[in-house]
Amino acid sequence: MIDHRTFLSRAALNFQESAIRKTGALAGRVPDLISFAAGFPATEMFPWEELQAISAELLASRDGSVLQYGATRGYRPLIEQLVPYLAGWGITAHADDFIITSGSQQGLDLAGRVLLDSGDVVLVELPTYSGAVAAFHNLQASLVGVAQDAEGLSIDALEETTARLRASGARPRFVYVTPNFQNPSGILMSAARRHALLAAASRLDLLILEDDPYGSIYFDDCTRFEETRPIKADDTEGRVIYLGTISKTLVPGFRVGWMVAAPEIAARVELAKQATDLHSGIFDQRVVHATLQRGVVQALAPKLRAHYQAKRTVMEDALREQLGTRLRWTQPRGGFFLWAEFDTAIDDRDLFERAVAERVSFVIGSAFYVNGEGHHFARLSFSAPTHDRIREGIARLGRALAASQNLQRPRPLGIA
Amino acid sequence: MIDHRTFLSRAALNFQESAIRKTGALAGRVPDLISFAAGFPATEMFPWEELQAISAELLASRDGSVLQYGATRGYRPLIEQLVPYLAGWGITAHADDFIITSGSQQGLDLAGRVLLDSGDVVLVELPTYSGAVAAFHNLQASLVGVAQDAEGLSIDALEETTARLRASGARPRFVYVTPNFQNPSGILMSAARRHALLAAASRLDLLILEDDPYGSIYFDDCTRFEETRPIKADDTEGRVIYLGTISKTLVPGFRVGWMVAAPEIAARVELAKQATDLHSGIFDQRVVHATLQRGVVQALAPKLRAHYQAKRTVMEDALREQLGTRLRWTQPRGGFFLWAEFDTAIDDRDLFERAVAERVSFVIGSAFYVNGEGHHFARLSFSAPTHDRIREGIARLGRALAASQNLQRPRPLGIA
Repeated sequence: MIDHRTFLSRAALNFQESAIRKTGALAGRVPDLISFAAGFPATEMFPWEELQAISAELLASRDGSVLQYGATRGYRPLIEQLVPYLAGWGITAHADDFIITSGSQQGLDLAGRVLLDSGDVVLVELPTYSGAVAAFHNLQASLVGVAQDAEGLSIDALEETTARLRASGARPRFVYVTPNFQNPSGILMSAARRHALLAAASRLDLLILEDDPYGSIYFDDCTRFEETRPIKADDTEGRVIYLGTISKTLVPGFRVGWMVAAPEIAARVELAKQATDLHSGIFDQRVVHATLQRGVVQALAPKLRAHYQAKRTVMEDALREQLGTRLRWTQPRGGFFLWAEFDTAIDDRDLFERAVAERVSFVIGSAFYVNGEGHHFARLSFSAPTHDRIREGIARLGRALAASQNLQRPRPLGIA
Repeated sequence: MIDHRTFLSRAALNFQESAIRKTGALAGRVPDLISFAAGFPATEMFPWEELQAISAELLASRDGSVLQYGATRGYRPLIEQLVPYLAGWGITAHADDFIITSGSQQGLDLAGRVLLDSGDVVLVELPTYSGAVAAFHNLQASLVGVAQDAEGLSIDALEETTARLRASGARPRFVYVTPNFQNPSGILMSAARRHALLAAASRLDLLILEDDPYGSIYFDDCTRFEETRPIKADDTEGRVIYLGTISKTLVPGFRVGWMVAAPEIAARVELAKQATDLHSGIFDQRVVHATLQRGVVQALAPKLRAHYQAKRTVMEDALREQLGTRLRWTQPRGGFFLWAEFDTAIDDRDLFERAVAERVSFVIGSAFYVNGEGHHFARLSFSAPTHDRIREGIARLGRALAASQNLQRPRPLGIA
């Protein structure tokens, strides 16, 4: 065998593994593990009957185009369904602004390829989605974090950071945000903050990459639909590149997402995608097209909101009952994640090892921080497990937390 | 609207559009156009019944994993089917050597990302597949052509070119080849040449990227199965990265290809893919797994060989009858393409415009040359059209060729 390392590119020598997927891989190896790690949608909510009917019809049609090569931009009738679908969130887009992507992860990679030279800076929230960090990092960009508060990304911090970077000769190119129920923090960026961010991006001449996988999954008991209005809806300058996906609102197994961008950007993304994979799976696109055309996705959304809201309540109740005050968190108002903060004396990696020993997993908080912080946080996904498994998992987590705390603070002698 | 060009990366400013897909896009705009351009498989050969049955079973199972997120490496049982499938061609691979890709186009991109720094050189055949050129070019690599003869890539030219490049300070990293029925030339690299290439790569310390979409499609009337043995089958050093796909042997609409590489390379490709699109469509992979497990792909192969061989014969007969000696070509021994050479006085772009006016298309030869040559060649795909359409298309091409020749050489006066 030759030494293959000598053939690797500089980028490849520095590729980062996604912590989410690394911890997810553990799930397969520990028997009876309860995973709060992966942000998987609930399989019990997959619309099996409708997907069966649609697939059967598509294949019964004997229409060759259902399984033939397709256009790089995507299946045009799917895009034409997405135009009114996104208009429901206030986004005015033309069919020519769309690129169908293989999930929104591909949108992150393609946006990076079109916008980033080696060494360029991407501004990201602290914390932020680790898959986005991996995508930009693999393109040899630098990731610089910007603080968030309860309303979302801090505009002051954005301005200070951008000025500081430019003064040092660095090139910040865009700011990556997930305004709706951010992964991992669950923060819903306020409307005022969204407007302020758009104005700041304009002043600072930055683009905004808006990732919106969870916008449909808002919880009625504490959040109004209007609060999920994307930044893209108020973008008059073509400053926002918007990413969506059906991974959370239908199924992730059909890899269908979309990017909405100004024509000049969309045209370059099309060229990038053409050389990357020609086009996304055409059968997948045909199925998703039919689910939008027949209102399957639309009818499913309120059921998903109720489903995930109930799971969130189960997790919060279990945390309160079983962990008392040993964890702090803000109530998730949508999405898949509860962002838990524990005593600063506890390290997330230590807690993770103890948790896996108790057969429960989560994603360590530091995986979402580009500045080395986050070691007293954990991302707990409530989306996939059943109510009973959530309760049992929190009990296991309680034992892990107790073990971690006991190590940090030895019990006084005599209290055995 | 802001000026988006100022935000584009250097790579994006130089992205190349695939000539194949550009000319393919024409097909949608000209009524009744006969396309010899796109290398589309014949839709009449899609195994509809089997795909219907498999899809129905998968969705009736209500097995959540059929539509859930999946592993970046790919669906493990699919890989376990591919191990014996590739062993049929002499390739000894372990499951850990595989990455499932979204078609082999993604394999080209991922290999490039793992192996190429900006400015590095990829050695390619003259002519070569334009989609590979686009993938490497978009990664800011330089493409340098190496001459072919009737047996394939010239080893002398490879050695001279590599030595010249290294003397000038350039870094050739790998040589990209399609030994089986090359796209576009149709050349079947001889067994002796394959062995010589492997030895030369070892001497020159180059990797080989072997793209094999057409290996199953050999024509029994002139080619033996043994002649399609991949270079990878004789690779003892881990020097060959091998790409395969079901796009030509099943359907392209399910985006499923595979890369087989040494563990160090495969591990980096996995990381690249993880950040690129998490994983390829899991439903697609499940369907392809079932077609391999049930022998659908295997049973289809001899029918595809007969089908495309017959179409090749129809095209050759039509060319001989209708164009006489105005075109030269070597009999295609497999694959989808006839590589036609015309009088050097005719320019491929001029002929293309006249052909489209006659409602027939092809891909201009120069699209496959990285050195600006190839202007007296055309790639004619016989894979998709019916026999009648092939004959009619060649008649149309004959009129276009006559028009192009007449322009170059005005008729003598008096012969109206």
